[in-house]
Amino acid sequence: MGAKDLEPSGERQSTSGVMEGGGYYAAHSSPQEAYGEFGFRWLEEAAGEIPLPEADRPLLVADLGAAGGGNSLEPMRRAIAAYRARDPARQVEVVHTDIPSNDFSALFKLVEGSERSYLRLPGVYSYAAGRSFYERLFPDGALFLGWSSIAVHWLSQVPEPIPDQIYPGFAAGSVREALVARSRSDWEAFLAHRAAELRPGGRLIVLGGSRRDDDVSGAEGLMTMVYESLTSLVADGSLKAEELRRMTIPTWNRTAGEFAAPFAGGPLAESLELRRRTAKVLPDAFFAAFEKTGDAAAYRDAVVGFFHAAFEPSLWSALDPGRDASNMAAIVGAFRRGLGERVAADPAAASCTWHVEILDIARR
Amino acid sequence: MGAKDLEPSGERQSTSGVMEGGGYYAAHSSPQEAYGEFGFRWLEEAAGEIPLPEADRPLLVADLGAAGGGNSLEPMRRAIAAYRARDPARQVEVVHTDIPSNDFSALFKLVEGSERSYLRLPGVYSYAAGRSFYERLFPDGALFLGWSSIAVHWLSQVPEPIPDQIYPGFAAGSVREALVARSRSDWEAFLAHRAAELRPGGRLIVLGGSRRDDDVSGAEGLMTMVYESLTSLVADGSLKAEELRRMTIPTWNRTAGEFAAPFAGGPLAESLELRRRTAKVLPDAFFAAFEKTGDAAAYRDAVVGFFHAAFEPSLWSALDPGRDASNMAAIVGAFRRGLGERVAADPAAASCTWHVEILDIARR
Repeated sequence: MGAKDLEPSGERQSTSGVMEGGGYYAAHSSPQEAYGEFGFRWLEEAAGEIPLPEADRPLLVADLGAAGGGNSLEPMRRAIAAYRARDPARQVEVVHTDIPSNDFSALFKLVEGSERSYLRLPGVYSYAAGRSFYERLFPDGALFLGWSSIAVHWLSQVPEPIPDQIYPGFAAGSVREALVARSRSDWEAFLAHRAAELRPGGRLIVLGGSRRDDDVSGAEGLMTMVYESLTSLVADGSLKAEELRRMTIPTWNRTAGEFAAPFAGGPLAESLELRRRTAKVLPDAFFAAFEKTGDAAAYRDAVVGFFHAAFEPSLWSALDPGRDASNMAAIVGAFRRGLGERVAADPAAASCTWHVEILDIARR
Repeated sequence: MGAKDLEPSGERQSTSGVMEGGGYYAAHSSPQEAYGEFGFRWLEEAAGEIPLPEADRPLLVADLGAAGGGNSLEPMRRAIAAYRARDPARQVEVVHTDIPSNDFSALFKLVEGSERSYLRLPGVYSYAAGRSFYERLFPDGALFLGWSSIAVHWLSQVPEPIPDQIYPGFAAGSVREALVARSRSDWEAFLAHRAAELRPGGRLIVLGGSRRDDDVSGAEGLMTMVYESLTSLVADGSLKAEELRRMTIPTWNRTAGEFAAPFAGGPLAESLELRRRTAKVLPDAFFAAFEKTGDAAAYRDAVVGFFHAAFEPSLWSALDPGRDASNMAAIVGAFRRGLGERVAADPAAASCTWHVEILDIARR
């Protein structure tokens, strides 16, 4: 699947009726973690170059679009360690952000309890902000270092449903144009707010789910199986056609050009500099394991579990509100069985290639 | 009921299986809000006297033990307004704290969405810390103003179950001595951490649920009805005796003397000054309404709803983990019916008198 689909942050809808909390996402997001590693080195380098806070003011670091925090512990630990090589006694405040419906209890329990947590370092404090990163999150000039891993592909909203598909990558014509426009305005809003928040010399490392210039994101095969699984539920009467019509995964994988455009000129380019960028491609780790072991059941369960954690909430939020819990559970179960059968029947077609654009941005 | 019982903060257990989120607590905590008003004036006065942050550093304000945030909006709004009378352009960061299992989504949705929210003020930012206030929450000297309303009566843990009762106020002998010792060490830990966090000249207003010097908290009548309701569930076989034995509401209402003791001498007195304190007593607003209207059903529902929001989670966390959701719902329903019948049968006996100690504490 495309990197666009990696993390349930941004503006996903609340679906407390069908989405597991308690760390389910953190336990099923290893592809995201593999991607994150590509950015760790740049994050550490940025942490070594940002300005020092005045006097005894703590260093403020943001983790933008944290979800359950499973992929946040290691980059935060590395950033703090890299910064403290220069300024060992500095107190540090880490703020994990996500939308209000995020499971912040799971996040706090992980950050507080994990042996891998950066909170094992002395003089470090952890907080959360329950607000979209398409809005202001921090005071003027208060932020020294920011990190956002596979989160900015979640749009603030989808302009309209995608005809006969749930995946925006398949959109065409005016629907596609509206998605491109929304993607552009969201990205510009994200950058404009960070420009106001970052201290001059402050840095922001963004790992963004991307697509190739020929518009391939790498998730097309799996997303086709997902749509087929849903249409078969409509065919047998368990899902309404109107519910399927409303279902959309509200993401957009930007091209390298779409990511870079705001830095080429205009007001954002006056305050933000794109110091460097690079593209990374990662093959599907689940499929690689399957090729090694031949265990189709394990592959099926891994892919279905990943889709569940990352994207199902976007689908089930479109169900009629009148459906009760047992009815919803039946639909969800039938969907997972149908998707699992399709994945097991054609493992190669379900495999995804992950494209990520890594950006190192500085506040001038 | 005693003020000890006002807010599900501190170290209450997670009980996601039976406790409503989504603002249920905020909608059923008007007694807490009535108490809070007693402290608003002192909070505003403190906000007018704290030191100004250096340069463009934001003012950090803490709301310690926020629960759903329903009682936090007004004091935070007033504190910011009072501070800005002196320093109008200062940016402000408000951090709401509670234990990790708190419903932070409900808190963020309320703070973001309420028309009454202090976030309507310009240049104000809101965060959460998911950690007990018996631990460190903020960097050294980073905190300028703190507020804690009806939260410090929640103990970090209860040393042992209360024999033949669920309410610590009924404890005697060595069980009582252990509770007093725990209450003392928790209060000293709370103050020691705040002493490290507060900027010299910073202030902390604490509204603490208290008891009279003759050991009456004012909740004894209702808590007796609660215990009777639970024992009748044991009698009819729906609750196990062992489950009831484990049930404890982990609170302790301190006397004025217990609140004041750490300021009289010793290490805490070197860094913290108790500038003033006062005691407030408030009659039961639900009972006052009942006396006016004679509506026993409304009174019953208000008392049962209040107990549910504030204390039920502490009880149901003691149920056997093997019980399924429908079984737990049956127990909870039977308990509420039984408590409601007892409240309606003797409204005066169920009514509570609220005792609150208000403390104005300064960092030397």
